Parts: sequence; C-alpha cells; structure tokens
Amino acid sequence: MSLELFDTEGAIYMGARREPQGCAVGLFGVPYDGTTSFRPGTRFGPAAIREVSSGLESYDPQLDLDLEDLAFADLGAVAIPFGAPEPVVAAVRRATEAVLDLGLAPLMLGGEHSISSGAVAAVAQCHPDLVLVQLDAHADLRQSWLGAHHSHACAMRRCLEVLPSGELRQIAIRSGTREEFQELRSSGRLVPIAAMAAALAPLRGRPLYLTVDLDWFDPAVLPGTGTPEPGGFHWPHFAELLEELRHHQLVAADVVELAPQLDPSGVSAVLAAKVTRSLLLLLGAQ
Amino acid sequence: MSLELFDTEGAIYMGARREPQGCAVGLFGVPYDGTTSFRPGTRFGPAAIREVSSGLESYDPQLDLDLEDLAFADLGAVAIPFGAPEPVVAAVRRATEAVLDLGLAPLMLGGEHSISSGAVAAVAQCHPDLVLVQLDAHADLRQSWLGAHHSHACAMRRCLEVLPSGELRQIAIRSGTREEFQELRSSGRLVPIAAMAAALAPLRGRPLYLTVDLDWFDPAVLPGTGTPEPGGFHWPHFAELLEELRHHQLVAADVVELAPQLDPSGVSAVLAAKVTRSLLLLLGAQ
Amino acid sequence: MSLELFDTEGAIYMGARREPQGCAVGLFGVPYDGTTSFRPGTRFGPAAIREVSSGLESYDPQLDLDLEDLAFADLGAVAIPFGAPEPVVAAVRRATEAVLDLGLAPLMLGGEHSISSGAVAAVAQCHPDLVLVQLDAHADLRQSWLGAHHSHACAMRRCLEVLPSGELRQIAIRSGTREEFQELRSSGRLVPIAAMAAALAPLRGRPLYLTVDLDWFDPAVLPGTGTPEPGGFHWPHFAELLEELRHHQLVAADVVELAPQLDPSGVSAVLAAKVTRSLLLLLGAQ
Amino acid sequence: MSLELFDTEGAIYMGARREPQGCAVGLFGVPYDGTTSFRPGTRFGPAAIREVSSGLESYDPQLDLDLEDLAFADLGAVAIPFGAPEPVVAAVRRATEAVLDLGLAPLMLGGEHSISSGAVAAVAQCHPDLVLVQLDAHADLRQSWLGAHHSHACAMRRCLEVLPSGELRQIAIRSGTREEFQELRSSGRLVPIAAMAAALAPLRGRPLYLTVDLDWFDPAVLPGTGTPEPGGFHWPHFAELLEELRHHQLVAADVVELAPQLDPSGVSAVLAAKVTRSLLLLLGAQ
Amino acid sequence: MSLELFDTEGAIYMGARREPQGCAVGLFGVPYDGTTSFRPGTRFGPAAIREVSSGLESYDPQLDLDLEDLAFADLGAVAIPFGAPEPVVAAVRRATEAVLDLGLAPLMLGGEHSISSGAVAAVAQCHPDLVLVQLDAHADLRQSWLGAHHSHACAMRRCLEVLPSGELRQIAIRSGTREEFQELRSSGRLVPIAAMAAALAPLRGRPLYLTVDLDWFDPAVLPGTGTPEPGGFHWPHFAELLEELRHHQLVAADVVELAPQLDPSGVSAVLAAKVTRSLLLLLGAQ
Amino acid sequence: MSLELFDTEGAIYMGARREPQGCAVGLFGVPYDGTTSFRPGTRFGPAAIREVSSGLESYDPQLDLDLEDLAFADLGAVAIPFGAPEPVVAAVRRATEAVLDLGLAPLMLGGEHSISSGAVAAVAQCHPDLVLVQLDAHADLRQSWLGAHHSHACAMRRCLEVLPSGELRQIAIRSGTREEFQELRSSGRLVPIAAMAAALAPLRGRPLYLTVDLDWFDPAVLPGTGTPEPGGFHWPHFAELLEELRHHQLVAADVVELAPQLDPSGVSAVLAAKVTRSLLLLLGAQ
Repeated sequence: MSLELFDTEGAIYMGARREPQGCAVGLFGVPYDGTTSFRPGTRFGPAAIREVSSGLESYDPQLDLDLEDLAFADLGAVAIPFGAPEPVVAAVRRATEAVLDLGLAPLMLGGEHSISSGAVAAVAQCHPDLVLVQLDAHADLRQSWLGAHHSHACAMRRCLEVLPSGELRQIAIRSGTREEFQELRSSGRLVPIAAMAAALAPLRGRPLYLTVDLDWFDPAVLPGTGTPEPGGFHWPHFAELLEELRHHQLVAADVVELAPQLDPSGVSAVLAAKVTRSLLLLLGAQ
Repeated sequence: MSLELFDTEGAIYMGARREPQGCAVGLFGVPYDGTTSFRPGTRFGPAAIREVSSGLESYDPQLDLDLEDLAFADLGAVAIPFGAPEPVVAAVRRATEAVLDLGLAPLMLGGEHSISSGAVAAVAQCHPDLVLVQLDAHADLRQSWLGAHHSHACAMRRCLEVLPSGELRQIAIRSGTREEFQELRSSGRLVPIAAMAAALAPLRGRPLYLTVDLDWFDPAVLPGTGTPEPGGFHWPHFAELLEELRHHQLVAADVVELAPQLDPSGVSAVLAAKVTRSLLLLLGAQ
Repeated sequence: MSLELFDTEGAIYMGARREPQGCAVGLFGVPYDGTTSFRPGTRFGPAAIREVSSGLESYDPQLDLDLEDLAFADLGAVAIPFGAPEPVVAAVRRATEAVLDLGLAPLMLGGEHSISSGAVAAVAQCHPDLVLVQLDAHADLRQSWLGAHHSHACAMRRCLEVLPSGELRQIAIRSGTREEFQELRSSGRLVPIAAMAAALAPLRGRPLYLTVDLDWFDPAVLPGTGTPEPGGFHWPHFAELLEELRHHQLVAADVVELAPQLDPSGVSAVLAAKVTRSLLLLLGAQ
Repeated sequence: MSLELFDTEGAIYMGARREPQGCAVGLFGVPYDGTTSFRPGTRFGPAAIREVSSGLESYDPQLDLDLEDLAFADLGAVAIPFGAPEPVVAAVRRATEAVLDLGLAPLMLGGEHSISSGAVAAVAQCHPDLVLVQLDAHADLRQSWLGAHHSHACAMRRCLEVLPSGELRQIAIRSGTREEFQELRSSGRLVPIAAMAAALAPLRGRPLYLTVDLDWFDPAVLPGTGTPEPGGFHWPHFAELLEELRHHQLVAADVVELAPQLDPSGVSAVLAAKVTRSLLLLLGAQ
Repeated sequence: MSLELFDTEGAIYMGARREPQGCAVGLFGVPYDGTTSFRPGTRFGPAAIREVSSGLESYDPQLDLDLEDLAFADLGAVAIPFGAPEPVVAAVRRATEAVLDLGLAPLMLGGEHSISSGAVAAVAQCHPDLVLVQLDAHADLRQSWLGAHHSHACAMRRCLEVLPSGELRQIAIRSGTREEFQELRSSGRLVPIAAMAAALAPLRGRPLYLTVDLDWFDPAVLPGTGTPEPGGFHWPHFAELLEELRHHQLVAADVVELAPQLDPSGVSAVLAAKVTRSLLLLLGAQ
Repeated sequence: MSLELFDTEGAIYMGARREPQGCAVGLFGVPYDGTTSFRPGTRFGPAAIREVSSGLESYDPQLDLDLEDLAFADLGAVAIPFGAPEPVVAAVRRATEAVLDLGLAPLMLGGEHSISSGAVAAVAQCHPDLVLVQLDAHADLRQSWLGAHHSHACAMRRCLEVLPSGELRQIAIRSGTREEFQELRSSGRLVPIAAMAAALAPLRGRPLYLTVDLDWFDPAVLPGTGTPEPGGFHWPHFAELLEELRHHQLVAADVVELAPQLDPSGVSAVLAAKVTRSLLLLLGAQ
C-alpha cells in the first residue's frame, strides 16, 4: 500500500520512526486553517508540536509508560489541495483509511477542527459503534458559518453526520449560540467537568475517538489558539480524563487548533506535545 | 444634548450601535495612561477590547443572556487633553454625566485606574447612596504617588472623596503598603475572596458601581497589564461574583488597566472583552 | 575581605545596597546557561528579576514584613569563566563562601540549575546538618546528560554529592526518566504537593537551603523558562510553603531557571522577583 | 445608491469622513487572505494601516499637499463571503463599481493581491484604455497555484484577463519561475528600477491604475508581509516613482499584502500608511 | 558638589565608572516619556542602551579611538518627578549644570525629545555662542501640541528659546506641518542630507551641541521609536557626519527617542549604543 | 561509507533529497552556540533556514539557475556532543570529510562561527591551495576570548591555523579591537567593499571556500543575529559578490550566525535561505 498521500519533508515527533512497518500508532499532521474566521495560524501547529517534543521526557509518570517502549511512526503531513475545506476533509479521510489499513491507530495533529470529520468518517467505517468524545471550548454545532459548510465552527455537526452511533459526548463546552446550548442541554451530550468520569464510564468497552480542540484548555495554559475562551481547564482536568481513558478502548484521536505563532513563549506547543505524548501512549497501550 | 465630548474615529464593540438613541447602555473608552509609573500602554486598552470582541459569541451561557437582545451604544473615546490627570478626570466626569443624561447606563473602558473617580463622581451625583465595589490587585489608597494626586496608585483614595455613602468594598486586595493594609483591615472594607457573596448580599437593592482593575485577575490569565501581581484570580472567581451581581442593581461599571501590547498572545484583551460582555448584559438587564 | 569575585556593572534589586557592610542578606546573580540543552536564555534571568523588582511593593502582606525594615546587599554578578560548567560551579562556591564569611545569608539568582551545587557545597561546609529542599518540575537526578557531568539535568545528583546529611526533599516533581522516578519513590525524597507542610515540619530547627527551580510553577504563571512542563503549581502553593518556612531556619536559597526573553509579557520575571522578595524577607527574619 | 456593500464597524484612516458625499477619493479595505500559501495575516492589513495613520502628519513635504485640503471617505471593509477567492473578487468588483458610481476615485487596502483583479475589472470598464502599473517582488503570472485559479500568485495573470489595453508595466520584479521570467523579459513588461521614469513617461495622459504589492519594498523596511524577498526597494525609489506619477492621470490604486502581525515593531504598517497617504493625495489632486 | 540629583540603582554603560572624579565625559539618562502622544516607551531607552553596550567593541575603527583610553562616568538616571514635563525639564537643566560644574562634558540619553531644552539651556549658559545641530525626522517646531507647551513635538521650539545664538541646523528633516516646512525653508536652517558637511564646516571652532533624535535614522535600521517615519538615513550618513564633527568643538550631546520595547530584535538599541560610543569618543577627544 | 554522523529527525531544505546518492552538493546543519557570549540562539539557525525555504522560488533570476535542475542532499544535523567547542569542531571536521568522501561539495549551516575551522580543515586537506573568503562584521582574529580558544570571536584565527595557503580575504570587516585592525590592515587581508571584485579576480581558478557570517549584512536586513553591528551591507552587495564568484571554483561554503528567535518577523531567516539557495546553485554549477 502506498503512502504517497503524505509529504515527508518535515521534522518528526521525538522518538518516532519515519516508516510505518511494525508500528502500533501512526501520527500525521494536517496543516490546514482555511476556514479560520478570527486569527489564522493553525497550519503551523503540527510542525510546532514536533519541534518542541524533544523538550519532553519520553517517560510519563502518571501513566507509567514510556515512548521508548512503543513503536510508532510519524508519517508526515497529509498532502492537501489549497482553498476550500471539502477536498481537504476528503484527503484526511483517505489518509486515515490508509493508516488504518496498515494496522496503525491514527493520531492526527491539526490544523483547524474542520478536519476531524474526515478522520472520524474513516474510523467509524471500521468501528460502526464508535463513540466520539470532544474536548472543546465551543459547541461547533452550527450548520454553516460565514457561508462555509465545513467551517471549524461546524466541526461537530459534520462529525455527527458520519458517526453511525450518534454517540457524542461534549465535555464542559463553555461557548456557543443560544441555539447550540439548547441542543447541548436537551440532547444530553453536554458533560459537566465534574461529571466527566461518571459520564464516560458506561462507555468502557466501546471503541472511542477522542478529539481534543486545544481551546478546551484555559487561555492561561494555552494562549496559542485562534479563538481563546476564558474559563477553561488546566492539566489536572486532563489528567483526570486520562485516568478514565486508561479503562477505555481508545482507537483514534486528534489534537487540533494549536496556533503556535500566537504564543511566543512556546508553552502552548509544549502543552500540545504533552497531550500528544499521552495519546500516543494510550493508543499504543491498547 | 451634544455628544461632541467623544471622538468617533475608532472601531466599535461587536454588535454595538454608534448612536445612543434607544439604547440602554453606553460604552465608551478613555485611552489615558499618563500617570503609569512602571510599564505604560493602557492607552491602547479600549481599542484592543473592541478589536477582539468579534471573536466572542454574543450569547453568554452562564447568564443566559444575549447581546443580540440588547440595544447598546459604543460612543467612542472621551476626548481628553494630554498630560496631567486632573483635566482627564474632569473630562471623564463630563462624559459620564452626558451618558447618564441620555438615560444610558455608563460602561467605561480604560485606560488607567485614575479615571474611575471621574465616572464615580458623576454616577454618585445621580445615586447618592451608591456602593462602590472594587476588583483589584492593589489597594490604590495612597494619598499621592510620585508627586501626583490623581495617580492610578491613588484611584480609590480619590473615589472615596466623591462617594457620599463611603460604602466601598475591596475584593481580595493582595498588594499595598503596610499603611494601606492597616487601613484595609481596620476599615472592614477588605473582602476575602471566599466571603465575596456573603459580603455583598446585604447591599442588594442599593445602586452599585463595579470598578474592575483587570490586574485583580492572575497574571496567568491576564499578563497584559502594567503592574502584574502574582497570586490573583481566575474566571471562576469572576463568574461567582457575576452570580451575586445578578441580584444587584448594577448602575455603572468600568474595566481598566488592560495594556494589550504587553501580551502578544492577545488573551488578555479577550478576557477583558468577555468581562465587558458580562457587564453589558448585566447593565442591560436592569 | 575582598569582593572582587563579583561584577558590579549591573542594576540592583529594589531597595538593596551595593555594599555588604551591616547587611543580613547577600543577593547575587550567576548569568550562566552553558549546559542548557533545549532553549537557552537563563543568563538573562538575574538582570530581569532586578529590572522588574521596582514594580513590586516592598511590603509583603502574607508575611507582614517589609523590605524597608531589612538591610540587604545586592552584590552583583559572580564573575564566571565562559564555556564548561565546572569552573562556573567552582566560582559560585567561592562567591558563596565569601558571602558567608561576611556574615550574610546567601540568596543566589540563576542562571541554570547546575550552579546550585556550588552554593550548596559552601553552605553545607558551615552547616553540616543542612537540609536541602527542592522545588522543581524535573527530578534532575541524572548522572550525566549529553556528555556533561554538571548539566542542569544533573543538578540534584551533584548537590547530593556535597550534602553531608543526604537530607533532600523534592517537592512534587512531575517529570523525569523511569529510573529517576524509581529513585524518587524508593528514596522517600519525593513529597506530594498535598504533603508539603507535613513532610517539612519534622525538619524545623535544622538549617535549610531552598532551591527554587522556577519551572516548578505551572507554565501558565511562568512561561519564561527553558523547559516548561505542564501540570505545575500556582502562587497559593508557594504561599503555603512560605507559611511552613516561617517556622524553619532558612540559611540560604536560590532562584534559578528564569529565561525572561521567552516571555515577552514579563510576568515570569515578576513572579521570580516576588519569590525573591519572599526569600529575602524570610532570610532576613532569621 | 446603496453602500451596504461595506461593513462600517471599524476605525477610519486619519482625517477621513465616514460618508462619501462630496468626497473625491473613496478608501476601502478588503481583509482577505484565503489563498495565502506561506504565512497568512494580510486580513489584518487594512485595520493596521488605519490604526497607525494618526502617527503621520497630514502634510506631505515632497508633494507639498495636505490631507486637510482633501475631502476623502473611508468607507470601511468590503463585506466578503468566507472561503474561496472567486466570490471575494466578485464582491471587490461590485464595491469598486459602487465607489466609481459615486464619482470617487477608488483606493483599496488589502488583503492579499488576488483581490486586485476585481478592482481592475471595475476601473477598466470605465477607462478602456487603462494602464496597469505593478510594484511587486513577484511576477504573479502563474496560471494557477496549488490548485487555485485566483491565488495571489496569479494576481497579474488575472488582471491581464480584465485589462482591455493589455498595458501592464511590472516594475523591477525580482522573483518568479523561469517561465515567468521568460515572459517578463520577452513581453517588454519588465521595467528595471533605473528605467522607471523613462518607461512610464510615454504613458502620461492615459488613465493609470497603480497596484502596490508592498513586498516590492525591501524586507528591511517592510518585514511585515507574507512572502518577503530580499533585494527590494527603499522609500527613495518610491519617492522617485511619485515624482513621475505627478504627471500622470492616476484614477485608482491599491495597497496590498501587508501582514502586520509579522512585524511587532509596527514600521511595516507605518510605511503602508505613508504609501496610502501619498496615493490619497495623488488621487485627490487629479 | 552633590550628585544626589541622580539615581544610581541601574546598570552602567560598558567601561564606564560610577564616580565622576577624573572623568572627561559624564553620561546620564532621563527615563521620561510623559508627553509621548503615539506610542510610549522611551522611558526604557537609557537602560536598553546600557544593556546592549557590552555587545560592542570598545574600539571604533572609523575614529581610530578606543573607549579604553577614555575616562568617562555613567552617573545614572536624573531623578525626575512624575507627570507634567516642566519640572522634568528643570531637573534636566540642574543635572546638566552639575555635570558641567564637575568639568565633564554632558552626554544625555533619553527619554523623549522634550528633555533636550533643559540640557541645551545649561550648556548655552556656559557657551553663549553655542550652535545646536539637530538630527531628526520631525521639525519639532510646534508652539504647543495637544495642549502641552513642553511636548516632544515642540522640542526645537523650546530649544530655540534658550539658545542665545539662535544658530540651529536641522539636518534633512522629512516630516512636519506645512507651517513648519515653510519656517524650515525660509529660515535657512534646513540642511539637505547632501549638504551636511558643507553646511557645518563654517561653524568649526564654535562650541557645538548635537541632539540626535534617533528617528532621523530610517525605520529599517531603527524600528524601535515611537513615531517612525519612512525615508530616513543609514549608518553611512551618520559616519559622514562624524567625519565632519571630528573638526568641530563638540561640547555636549544627547541621544533621544529610543523606545526599545517596540523592537524585539534589539538592533535599535544596538544602533543607539553605537551612536553613544561615537559621541563619547568625540566628546572625550576634545 | 556511513553517514551515522548525522541526525535526520529534522525537516529538509526545499527540494532536497534525504540521501546523498547521485547528488552534487551536501547540505548539513550544526546547531551549536556554546561559546556565544552575548545573545545565544544560533542553535536554531539551521532549522529556521529550512523552514522558510519553501517561501522562496527554486529559480534564481540573477544566476539564471534553478534548484529543480540540481541534485542536492540535505543530510540533517551533525551529531555533536554538548558543552565545550573542541569536540564540536572535531565532529564538524569528520562530517565534512564524510561529505567530501561521498563526492559532494559541502554546504554547512550554523550555528556559530567557531564551527567553520572544522569544515575548512577538512576541505583544505583535499585542496591544499584553498583560498578562504570571509564575509563578516567582525575580524574574529582573537587568540582566545573569555577563556575559550575555540570561541566564535576567534573563528578566523583558528581557520588560519588549518589553512595551508594562508590565503584569507576578509571582506569589509567593520568591528574589532585595535590590535585586530592593525593586523587586518598590515596583512593586506582586509578588502574594502568597493574593491571586492578586484581583490578576488586574481584568485580565479583557485579552489575557494566562502564563509558567510550573516552579521556581515546590515542589521536592517538581518536583525536576527547575536552580535548585530550597524553599518553593514545589503543584498546588492552580496549580488555583486555572486557575479564575481560565478567565475570562481567554489568548492565549499558555510552560512553561520543566524539567531532566528531574535527576529520575530522571520526576514532574517528568509535572507539566510536565499543566501543558501545562491550557494547551492553556485556549488552545483561547478
């Protein structure tokens, strides 16, 4: 099977291999920010995550797992056409299918959130009872936004369309329109931060896709994102989620909406790289 | 009544009108930082708040209120002379009186804290039993500072002089001289963060002016201010205050001391814009 | 006794004297970052701490102590040779000895963490039962790192070699290799954040050296450091430590790993300057 | 005639009016950067030019003209749909036609270069013998770029399609493909910097549209652009062009490709604002 | 004579002494930016110049002079009251008089340009036939600006009032009002860049004060200034001036309007430090 | 022959191959800044040059050559030990020998200037009559600097020791000690900028190594370097050198002293990438 779907001119994540043979996890980036309405720059996200990854240890004391014990590949960047989001989402879907065909668990680095529906579609094809868990500041449930159907403001609306189970959990969303919040509340999909573990525990055993829009974190810990929203979450909240996820069957994940050039200190990219390390280890531990 | 007190060349807050007719709230800026002793730049605060406001939703899920349901005006910048603070404070007072005369609740964006006494004086004239609530890192109770009577380090001393009721509550001040802390403690005006709601509840029904020196927030969430002081507060603390304020008669407010150029990530301005949205909604809900 | 060990061309900390006579505490800087593997710049730390110190009040409301009541000297920068760390550590040791000989309690501003073993060696010579308390994100227990024996990644390994008592407490370390964590846990030196006061109370009465690697703080409050690690601590945690330290015999301290140029907002330097003020006051209160 | 084609929530250029009545020149912005392949951000260009304009004098000593003697309007931002460039170019064309219908000379602030063909099309409809003069680092003659027909890398190719006279002069282009340079040289459209006045003089009396891609300037004086190209030009070169243009019939112009967030010093925006002032004065002097 | 007019807490220029005894030149700073209308920050200028001075060599190959052969003092910062400019100008005058009384040639680092008239007044008292040479982008001839008589926009108007000889040469001014340019041209004070040496040569033998507003340089080489003006000058132009000045009796000088925080690259401060080195050497060579 | 001397985890220069087979030029980076005395950061230089290279065209209109017609390899980063410079220089020498053994012309990206002597030594072994041409602001002729023999301030002194021919040309050096300038002038090695072509023409036919310390360029065009020196050169000067070099036998080159994090605009890295493109094309055209 060909991997010419990927550009391989860039750097790789600390400790990764460039070839997929014998690997358990396949990391890839999607440097796309074409529908970003406010402050662009998530196209630089994947490169920044890789660049700072070498400042982290390979060992994770919470999970007691070490990247050195994991074979994982960094496949590069999905080759995407420029402009409208539709062909990008299609390319993401094909790339994710290729990764799955190779027997690797996909871990995608964005790029803006609109790319998630491509990956979710591919994973849901393999796992029809897939559950989708969303970390995000924003509901992302608009039908369209500023004329775009595949805008990042519509990311979850598009994911729902390709998720056969319809099982979506939206963790502690804190921004949206009045209509989005009515849907969030009436659908039962909105999970308060204090109920995170309780809401997910019943889903143990089901294949799970975790989409991490990094603006779920508080702007204090992640200022480098296009649409920061005060009142977000800190690392201990994420660590609590990881504890729960250790009991789940995580089959794929993405980490999106890092706009590194907005944070000259670089700590946003470091946080994203640590989230990525956690997910690599969880995906590899399956 | 003339509004030639204002310059109108600038941008406006998301969803605002430029004309006051039919509006409930009147927003205006005061781009003044003339007495700033450490790091200047609050003159750029009002413009930055307006610029980033479009990145926020108009709906506030905590208050369950929407700016789209509120008629409010952004009147521009108070026209101020350059140099010493006295004429600036006088201009702020005249501008606030004009806004009140039009029947609008004033919401002022600073600029440095020294401008507050001008607005408080105007509001107290309408509401003799006005209560003043201060969010701030610093006591601001000096009689003068580096030779200036109207320095931002004296902001509350000046406000007390124009507040007939003498009712000032200073929420969780964490920096000051030994003398200021002696006064804070002996006067009973210092409110510990844990006692916020309890200390304000007895004042329900009284007209209330809220002055938000943004350095009350922790530098983690608001690095963009001239005199950051570690050990401050996060959005949940402010949200808790909002819960209490829903039961109060908020008649005026200001948001001061944003120095946006000190925070290249822009999240300080976003926080200030969200505080502004909350206060617009509360003022409009009266 | 000569102090020609120090360069005195730089600025001084707010309220300090330039001469040691009659002083209780001796502050000095070590602008060294020679073994920094990821992002250099801690050489600029001491100057940045001094520069922003004037934005703080001299009075500390938690400790109820005022720098104005304390005679302390800012002796400048230790004159260091360039290149390898060994001669730097030796110069730090000689400088610390000189400060101790003058009867001053040493307070050292880094620079990278590798300099601590020089100061610890000098202090332990005076106080053989010295206890060392480490605030840090990283275990720093490697035997060597990228070929360097005195790397900042080996800081505590080197300190242990010059600490006769062997009494080291490592507060809430959150990053390290698998081997380091095995040692941390088996040695009983690792102190969980919640057990801080309980773990230190038995050591009251013993001379204590506090080494503050500023990356112990969360990157949200201190982004300006070379190897930021998400999941760190905030000011209230440090204030809790200060409460315990008031009952201890603090005889020396250092504040290291500030890389100010990585944080354009300057709040990292302000936090470091406030930590420095706390330690000046505690050292002076002995 | 309606101007609802424009958003008017933003700030205006120094000394401009908000209404077109009685004005000679109509300024407007197009905050679009949708096809930018390398570093986005020209969407912030128009706002930055307006913001810094107040730092300039209204008087131009070279031209001996003063903005205070000119009635000109700043009409705001063209309301554009999000995503693909085609509807944006169409909206620019409609907006330019509206400005021309009002009898104003259009001056457009970008945004990326792809918008120029919309304005050129509208102006060429009024002035069939229109001459187009391009200042640019890049030839912009590609047929398409990364799949986009209306990419900013194709700006001049698209302009040529709507320029009946075919008269294009490309001033001192210094970057392009081998094919573009073959066309530049064989077509006679490439004007060396030393031949600027000589090449334009024969076109006196013809209606002229000047498109200023700011990356024509050297990155030393204009670092804030997406695709900087070393070896560019300085203000004296532009001043020399202005001397020649005083003898021409300038009927419209644009200033594009400022990406202000790439230049924290702000001097790029100041240069763009001064270019804008020159063009306002020349357009108003017709 | 007392030097308590100066604060001495700051760093010093490379190679300077802290005490004036035996020195030929007295350097001092004035960290004042109180009337700055556009972008403040020149208060940080003197500290920045000193900080970067150590990156320069002490030897100047053009002048063939070495700071190591010169005894010069860095006296610190003039102690200034806060707020309005009048008392600042008075303090500058007293400080300059003190320096002259000690027999040192004064070299002042700003701060904004309004401080120059204080120093010129003191020097002109010693040298009634003093000639003033101004490098500047702006004419600075306004009678008042935004209500301030001592604004930096009026710097030369104020200097003319304290210059008995009335001999002012304004080198290649490129920005001002129509009225200012009429005066510049009619007075014969405006010197074109090409006529610099020719215009100054007749003044050889006369005591000369050089005031360097750093915005005379092009924003390309000095972006760190409050009111950058495109079309300025480069180092070779300044070197040409130095050649001429070697034949003059330079008795005092100032270097003003550096706003270092506007230029994160630091090259503006380096240029200012090199200008300062040149002037130190010329003043010391008298 | 093994290339395990190189790390290959990073990105590559636009259009390069990762494998040396069949290539004419071998590019590699040396991320070392261990002896930098003023502002560190050249360790980030090679990565920045590669990152921005994609913003350039592959075609060079001056040389009329295209990278698309050239087979060249980007071999990654030389694996270097940490700390003192001696083993780094040795590693550079071994790496350069390996590249030469493969039949590729070496092009090295720094990193600080001290690495050049390693590469020069390797090349001079192949070409005993090698001529060395230095572009630099600084003479770099110190015997040692701050205790280091292999400091970047001694780069040319070390190169002379490994250059059998002793033929060094130092182009328009503008900074150094009095002693360095005496040597520069007396040795006849100092080439004034106006004499560049004339001084090099007699060396046509001799193998030539060009070492480009990027601080030779003016800080206006290259602010991103550790020790910027005003009064430098612009692209046309470099283009003039390229014209002369077309007639020479260029056998190796390096591009050093880019400190990209000091220039947030990124134009310094773009300039360095364009210099690199020129040298790739010249080396490939031999």
